[in-house]
Amino acid sequence: MRRYLETIKSKEAVRKILEHVRPIEEEEMIPAYQGKGRITTRPVYAKCSNPPFVCSAMDGYATMFEKTLEADMTHPLSLAKGSDAVRVNTGDAMPAGMNAVVIREEVEEAGQHIVIRRPLYLWQNVRMIGEDVIEDDMLVPTNHVIGIFDVSMLISAGVTHVPVRRMPKILIIPTGKELMDVYNGSTDTESRGRRLIDSNSHLLAGMAVETGFQATRHAIVADRKELREVVGKSVNDYDVVLINAGSSAGDEDYTEDIIRELGVLVFHGVSMMPGRPAVFGIVRDKPVFGIPGYPVSAAISFQSFLEPVYEKLTSSKVAKRSVIPCLTPYKIPSRIGLEEIVRVNIQKHNGRYYVFPLPRGASILSSMARADGLITIPENIEGYGEDEEIQCQLLKDECDIANRVHIVGSHDLSLDIMRDLMKKAHPEADLLSTHTGSLSGILAIKKGVADLCTTHIFDESEKVYNIPVIEKYLSGRNVVLVHIAKRQQGLVIKKGNPKKITGIGDIGREDIRFINRQFGSGTRILLDLLIKEKGIKKESIRGYEREESSHTAVGIMVRESVADTGVAIYAVAKLFSLDFIPLAEEEYDLVVTGEFAEDQRFAKLMAIIRSDVFRKRLEEAGGYNTGHTGAIKYGKL
Amino acid sequence: MRRYLETIKSKEAVRKILEHVRPIEEEEMIPAYQGKGRITTRPVYAKCSNPPFVCSAMDGYATMFEKTLEADMTHPLSLAKGSDAVRVNTGDAMPAGMNAVVIREEVEEAGQHIVIRRPLYLWQNVRMIGEDVIEDDMLVPTNHVIGIFDVSMLISAGVTHVPVRRMPKILIIPTGKELMDVYNGSTDTESRGRRLIDSNSHLLAGMAVETGFQATRHAIVADRKELREVVGKSVNDYDVVLINAGSSAGDEDYTEDIIRELGVLVFHGVSMMPGRPAVFGIVRDKPVFGIPGYPVSAAISFQSFLEPVYEKLTSSKVAKRSVIPCLTPYKIPSRIGLEEIVRVNIQKHNGRYYVFPLPRGASILSSMARADGLITIPENIEGYGEDEEIQCQLLKDECDIANRVHIVGSHDLSLDIMRDLMKKAHPEADLLSTHTGSLSGILAIKKGVADLCTTHIFDESEKVYNIPVIEKYLSGRNVVLVHIAKRQQGLVIKKGNPKKITGIGDIGREDIRFINRQFGSGTRILLDLLIKEKGIKKESIRGYEREESSHTAVGIMVRESVADTGVAIYAVAKLFSLDFIPLAEEEYDLVVTGEFAEDQRFAKLMAIIRSDVFRKRLEEAGGYNTGHTGAIKYGKL
Repeated sequence: MRRYLETIKSKEAVRKILEHVRPIEEEEMIPAYQGKGRITTRPVYAKCSNPPFVCSAMDGYATMFEKTLEADMTHPLSLAKGSDAVRVNTGDAMPAGMNAVVIREEVEEAGQHIVIRRPLYLWQNVRMIGEDVIEDDMLVPTNHVIGIFDVSMLISAGVTHVPVRRMPKILIIPTGKELMDVYNGSTDTESRGRRLIDSNSHLLAGMAVETGFQATRHAIVADRKELREVVGKSVNDYDVVLINAGSSAGDEDYTEDIIRELGVLVFHGVSMMPGRPAVFGIVRDKPVFGIPGYPVSAAISFQSFLEPVYEKLTSSKVAKRSVIPCLTPYKIPSRIGLEEIVRVNIQKHNGRYYVFPLPRGASILSSMARADGLITIPENIEGYGEDEEIQCQLLKDECDIANRVHIVGSHDLSLDIMRDLMKKAHPEADLLSTHTGSLSGILAIKKGVADLCTTHIFDESEKVYNIPVIEKYLSGRNVVLVHIAKRQQGLVIKKGNPKKITGIGDIGREDIRFINRQFGSGTRILLDLLIKEKGIKKESIRGYEREESSHTAVGIMVRESVADTGVAIYAVAKLFSLDFIPLAEEEYDLVVTGEFAEDQRFAKLMAIIRSDVFRKRLEEAGGYNTGHTGAIKYGKL
Repeated sequence: MRRYLETIKSKEAVRKILEHVRPIEEEEMIPAYQGKGRITTRPVYAKCSNPPFVCSAMDGYATMFEKTLEADMTHPLSLAKGSDAVRVNTGDAMPAGMNAVVIREEVEEAGQHIVIRRPLYLWQNVRMIGEDVIEDDMLVPTNHVIGIFDVSMLISAGVTHVPVRRMPKILIIPTGKELMDVYNGSTDTESRGRRLIDSNSHLLAGMAVETGFQATRHAIVADRKELREVVGKSVNDYDVVLINAGSSAGDEDYTEDIIRELGVLVFHGVSMMPGRPAVFGIVRDKPVFGIPGYPVSAAISFQSFLEPVYEKLTSSKVAKRSVIPCLTPYKIPSRIGLEEIVRVNIQKHNGRYYVFPLPRGASILSSMARADGLITIPENIEGYGEDEEIQCQLLKDECDIANRVHIVGSHDLSLDIMRDLMKKAHPEADLLSTHTGSLSGILAIKKGVADLCTTHIFDESEKVYNIPVIEKYLSGRNVVLVHIAKRQQGLVIKKGNPKKITGIGDIGREDIRFINRQFGSGTRILLDLLIKEKGIKKESIRGYEREESSHTAVGIMVRESVADTGVAIYAVAKLFSLDFIPLAEEEYDLVVTGEFAEDQRFAKLMAIIRSDVFRKRLEEAGGYNTGHTGAIKYGKL
């Protein structure tokens, strides 16, 4: 049983790492046209001037300016072709002795002569030697990251090859008996057994290439002996070795021991989250990292530690991501004593940016893919308060964020269909949905941090969907309610109904494991209404306290026998081939603020909601009634 | 004789181009790990959930939570290994029937049992099926540009291959008898004759690859017949064909005619600068461009026209460059009726960004490489006034600009040496020098738009360098004068002195062609002093009005016999193997404002100026006296 040896702060970790990394000295000469992104090892000087000789800057006739001094509008001057005037095109070397060019448009052709009506001056329309670059000019200094314009400047100055630092080589070693290589085996559950797909090695390789490394993925290493051998050998061939994972405290977490056996352990454990169990050591002068196994931890560790390593190895600077000031729409708590890096979505609302934290679990890679940015909560505070201005490191383009529609609130498959149709019709646009449940969506609008929300909340007394809740929480506010569709909600049950569930009345049965939806979701509100009607006690429902935040999550749990039943929409039952007992036909609607209703982006969204293809795809998904899709139910557009 | 057919505005040109471009429909399936930057043709759904089964989230023991309810600190609970508690590592599938994991650190090992002192709850430390991604979740929609996190998300969800749009293929055809391929021939003047190096095709290929095209460079095409053949064939194999150049009005500008012969001409001539002579037409449904030959025109045309074409072909959006608000330190005039795009350097000064226009000539590629950004002057105004706030599109990182030292003023080879040493010692830093001449540099400090300037201005009456001019223009200002070096100025003369020049007295001779430096430069001030002393009239000096803005420019003109002599520093004479007649030993100094003298960047620069290696490299360059290099001559640090 082993805990992390010591836990150091992330800055201290970086400092310790960099102490052990030495810049790469090896230089290679590469063709300049392959130079983009490479880093020079010494200054590069022009081999020749550009242009290398005096040449015409225009299409016209070269001549001697001294001969043209008398020309004016009333005294046209005639120059003999061949001797006094030589036809030239742009870039042609100036004929010997000539020192000015008259442009073609200002010349009258007259057989063997040309006629001009204006005097020329010395070097008029002539490009001097070295106008652009002069022989021996320093084109780029040492440690310069070559850009695309540098490439053509170098070539134009006769520099065909440039001296650059060898690219740093990194080896990524995926480890673990539980892993499988999806490119080397089948993905169906049968043939892969109970193994997990190795996607981290691709993540780390992708990040490494993006940073500037030459990255190699090793095959999955399953046992300790092999790992020790691989590390021992690879430190000879690579500048950096990453072991992923095996840095934690499990039976197969050999990284620390192997580093100790082969070299020197520098630290194990960093007080940051995600990324805590990182290991670092030196084996035969080479940095060896144990990178945590959860994908978000792996990504954050790479960014925190391997980018500085790249900079040190190459004597260069990794381009920094943009940082923008944002506001917190609500409190974002965090544990004191631990630096926490939180993925966020960003919503631009009334000219200000708001950050919406994504699920924080280190295992949720999808939230990394969906994140717009990262915020860092320092270790010495307990998180951020409401309406605090904080700095956010962007992972996406500011433009993309601004062009996007952001819907908070209730989850439904129609949101994915809308998104797909939106990107199809308007590649520059996008739709982001944050599944907080209906009520949270409405409260976000009330608070002024959201423009759009989806909702399906039934009012018990009025027997109406959505309008009463809007009138209650958004009274006096200019909002519009757009009908998306009616949809079937019901109990989803494993195919064939092995437990013989007949209706809502059965969910309190002792032998039934239920799976619930989160508090505030319309589906939860529906369930609570139904059990109240039936007089079923919450306490009697096994699994009532286990909440999921989407219909599909409930569906997959039932299909995989984690639960026997739960409430979800018909489309999910169809998707996962589940049995379905209808409970209600709901109205799933979209609330939009008056201001956003006038935004171009909303116009695009409305066009999609009202399109035939949207209706068609909803009907294909199943359980939707699209008879009034796109109708305005409250307020007006 | 042909002028452009018509001249249209750039926006109108883009509109016309896009009318003729159709999105690529062909889809290809590629391995997900090669997906970065590619664009999906349809939504991609998860093939399996991640995790695909219920598994342990921690290293520990799996058990049934129901059996642990009685455990507390005073009533330790014992669970039998194997039956009631199964050892698991993170990611292991949960043993059948088990529904909670106690982490290793909270377990006391007791032979065949484990002891716990806290109850567990349902699914504690267990990752549910689909916690990250649920089977059939839409992972990315149509027209999604795949990012590195998407790649691993796709793989983790069992998606090994993704449907993406075929990459658009572009062919770049360099044309012109005057061109040579530097990778296919020697660069020495002898063997290449009077030809120019083709660097544009590399520039355009680089920009095309950066944008997302699959770019192919054709060999240089020298004649009309061949060009017609190549265009006729290549429209079958490529989505876009670029001809460069041949779009102007020279004898070899066939592009328009060839487009007309093979297809339909859409426009010739755009009212923008650089980039005016662009041609566009359609040949067998494929867009064919004639891109102007001057490199800056080529780059601006590519950006203006080919980026929108890429977006249309691929139904995606090219990442927009950041735009920041900047101030104009002085007037930036421009011609009305023509949209002008001006390259600028950006200087951050007192928290505000100032734009300094670079040479505007379309032939000056190096200024594109050196530019920090581009500003656009619309066609309906005559440029910008002083202190106007304008928008600048960044070509470089904001961070790089902020970390840089910017010196305006007098040109000297020592600036390149400083820059090289700066980047060597501090890869994150850089040094930018703008050669405006000594006086303009001092005036920029006076105006408050510069932090540093270099100067060598001799005061006739006091017989002292630099201090009097500082006292005159910067009186009452807190500035410091740092001595860089003494340097030899003199007449540079072709090796062997063919015209038998003996000293400054000869430059007025009828047979001598002189090359001058720009007004306001210290060297010009020196020359004017010397000829005044000798009683030489400006009018008698042939070439007095031809100004160059650097010592090296004067040197190359003399070596290449464009002029017989000019004034330059000894280092340039040495560089170009010229004869040298000394005229003066000058003091070349650096002025720094009091505020900037306290900046970390200045500390770095001072360390370099005072380093042995700087002195050594100056001495190697020749003509420098470094006896007092780094001394403070005025003010204090």
